[in-house]
Amino acid sequence: MKAAVWHGQKDVRVEDVANPPVPGKGEVTIKVKRCGICGSDLHEYEIGPVGIPIKEPHPMTGRMAPLIMGHEFSGDIFKLGEGVSNLKVGERVVASPLWYCGKCYWCRRGNYNLCRTAAVLGAGADGACAEYINVPAYTVFKLPPQISYDVGALVEPLSIGIRTVKQGRVSPGDTVAIWGAGPIGLFALQAARVAGATRVYVIEKALRRKECAAELGATAVLDPKDGSPVREIYRMTDGIGVDVALECVGEKETGEQTMRLSRRGGRVVYVGVFHEPAQVDFNRIGVFEREISGVFVNNGEFEPAIAYLADGRVKAEPLISQKITIDEINRGLEELSNHKEKNIKILVSFDG
Amino acid sequence: MKAAVWHGQKDVRVEDVANPPVPGKGEVTIKVKRCGICGSDLHEYEIGPVGIPIKEPHPMTGRMAPLIMGHEFSGDIFKLGEGVSNLKVGERVVASPLWYCGKCYWCRRGNYNLCRTAAVLGAGADGACAEYINVPAYTVFKLPPQISYDVGALVEPLSIGIRTVKQGRVSPGDTVAIWGAGPIGLFALQAARVAGATRVYVIEKALRRKECAAELGATAVLDPKDGSPVREIYRMTDGIGVDVALECVGEKETGEQTMRLSRRGGRVVYVGVFHEPAQVDFNRIGVFEREISGVFVNNGEFEPAIAYLADGRVKAEPLISQKITIDEINRGLEELSNHKEKNIKILVSFDG
Repeated sequence: MKAAVWHGQKDVRVEDVANPPVPGKGEVTIKVKRCGICGSDLHEYEIGPVGIPIKEPHPMTGRMAPLIMGHEFSGDIFKLGEGVSNLKVGERVVASPLWYCGKCYWCRRGNYNLCRTAAVLGAGADGACAEYINVPAYTVFKLPPQISYDVGALVEPLSIGIRTVKQGRVSPGDTVAIWGAGPIGLFALQAARVAGATRVYVIEKALRRKECAAELGATAVLDPKDGSPVREIYRMTDGIGVDVALECVGEKETGEQTMRLSRRGGRVVYVGVFHEPAQVDFNRIGVFEREISGVFVNNGEFEPAIAYLADGRVKAEPLISQKITIDEINRGLEELSNHKEKNIKILVSFDG
Repeated sequence: MKAAVWHGQKDVRVEDVANPPVPGKGEVTIKVKRCGICGSDLHEYEIGPVGIPIKEPHPMTGRMAPLIMGHEFSGDIFKLGEGVSNLKVGERVVASPLWYCGKCYWCRRGNYNLCRTAAVLGAGADGACAEYINVPAYTVFKLPPQISYDVGALVEPLSIGIRTVKQGRVSPGDTVAIWGAGPIGLFALQAARVAGATRVYVIEKALRRKECAAELGATAVLDPKDGSPVREIYRMTDGIGVDVALECVGEKETGEQTMRLSRRGGRVVYVGVFHEPAQVDFNRIGVFEREISGVFVNNGEFEPAIAYLADGRVKAEPLISQKITIDEINRGLEELSNHKEKNIKILVSFDG
């Protein structure tokens, strides 16, 4: 089967790898229909390896580079492994990209996403940018008929947006600021509105992303090129700051700035992945009693993601900028790398 | 009356200031019996001004330097202002050092300690290192007979230790690490045990403080001079880290190190006041889903502080290293500055 395989930085190859994998006990094989390119795929391409093991095999899966990339996908159940009784061949599905051990300190407390040896598709296990993928049945969720394969491939990034809002305890009446209107930021915007936020300010500089934030309900979209977003948000909140600030970028400059957006006693969530340390005045946490938290993958956010897409409270179509074939994967990565002003989400389609 | 007045860095003068102040409406005058020297008093002395206004008057009180220092105190009600009916002259009391406006965004939500114009004794208002002090009646709490004036003067730092543990949501079964065994760290240690922590590791290098942590129930006391406390705590927790890490120092090096002590998904509280920014890898928050928070003064922690000292669950006497007269205030500050190895809390006594 055809697969997009990460070999190293700027080295993703479309290869003909082994035939559809045989599902082991408790596993299923999914015939992939769509696979999105995520910011973390892009990081692996641009500056990787970030999470992909290259020196030692992954402790759970035993796998290391080269690995098939991709973890945001939709498809059909193609084959059932031994002992899988809750799914049927042909069912339309999505799957959470996180495999966990079920036995460690974290798993025993239900914190599966923090599992000591967790493997993420495309990093610790072969990913979904391929014609077929094998996954444990416990990671699979059925897609209702009103959710297309296109939209289904965005369930995973929406799950992150929802977890971001949950970690920030966004509540009715809250004011929210989101730094970054990539897919996660745009889903966090919509999830914040679902959670009852009254005003959601979005900070972004890329044109198409700014437009999309405005279309999807942002109270105001601020471009850092037009002046300090921190000052502007304090102006718009009577000098108070927002109740919750969400960092969906992961750049050195935005780390502390996002913290400053939140009021005394406000909440801040870091979902962006950072690639260098940053300077922080710890008094912004201590003396201001801010509450800071983070997001890693999901733990219980696939169900609400599917529900909100099904009932229309969250829209995913506006985020889809392009559909490409797997042979165009390098063009897709370069597009996202160089042209954020016109791209939000690029999907690899396996239909054609 | 005699008072210790902060005029500037390394410039604290014992002066004869105005006679006992006359209590305004809703205020009381307290005859001070003991006033402790706090780490923040020491900072004002060593590197101040930190919180004392020197250029513009404080927005609530209109006061600025020179100001009487001190905010940890016990005493007797000396005079009642108009409209104060819940207190009697001669009653033994302590008082929370925070005055709030009652009207701002934070006060309207009950977050009095985050009041936009809050004044803290010794920083925005005249403090308690004087024979008498005037305070709003709403800040006053009665001392039960079993709490001495000495111990009463430590209710305030204990309230901070309790708030630290509350902000960290220390719960039955938790493992806790505390960086710094000054008064706040030692009270946080005891408050963590009251809250049900099973193991409390304390990191400290000053001899008397290490001894005191051991006496007061620390599971282990680690001296950074003996090797990396982070490595040692991971060793003692089977590579997991602690559930809650409390930073009670405020130094550049301890900021991120304390974060590293906590497990994935663990909590970290910053109570130390920092005097310079530090480098932080934001992924330690984001990807690890740590929850970070802070502490500013108190909001509801005076009652439990008094209750725990009264019922003996928290001990304050071991923390009292010396009692001095107000004329010896500069010696007291220098002792704390240069001899942490033999001093924890120094009290100014107004009995003699």
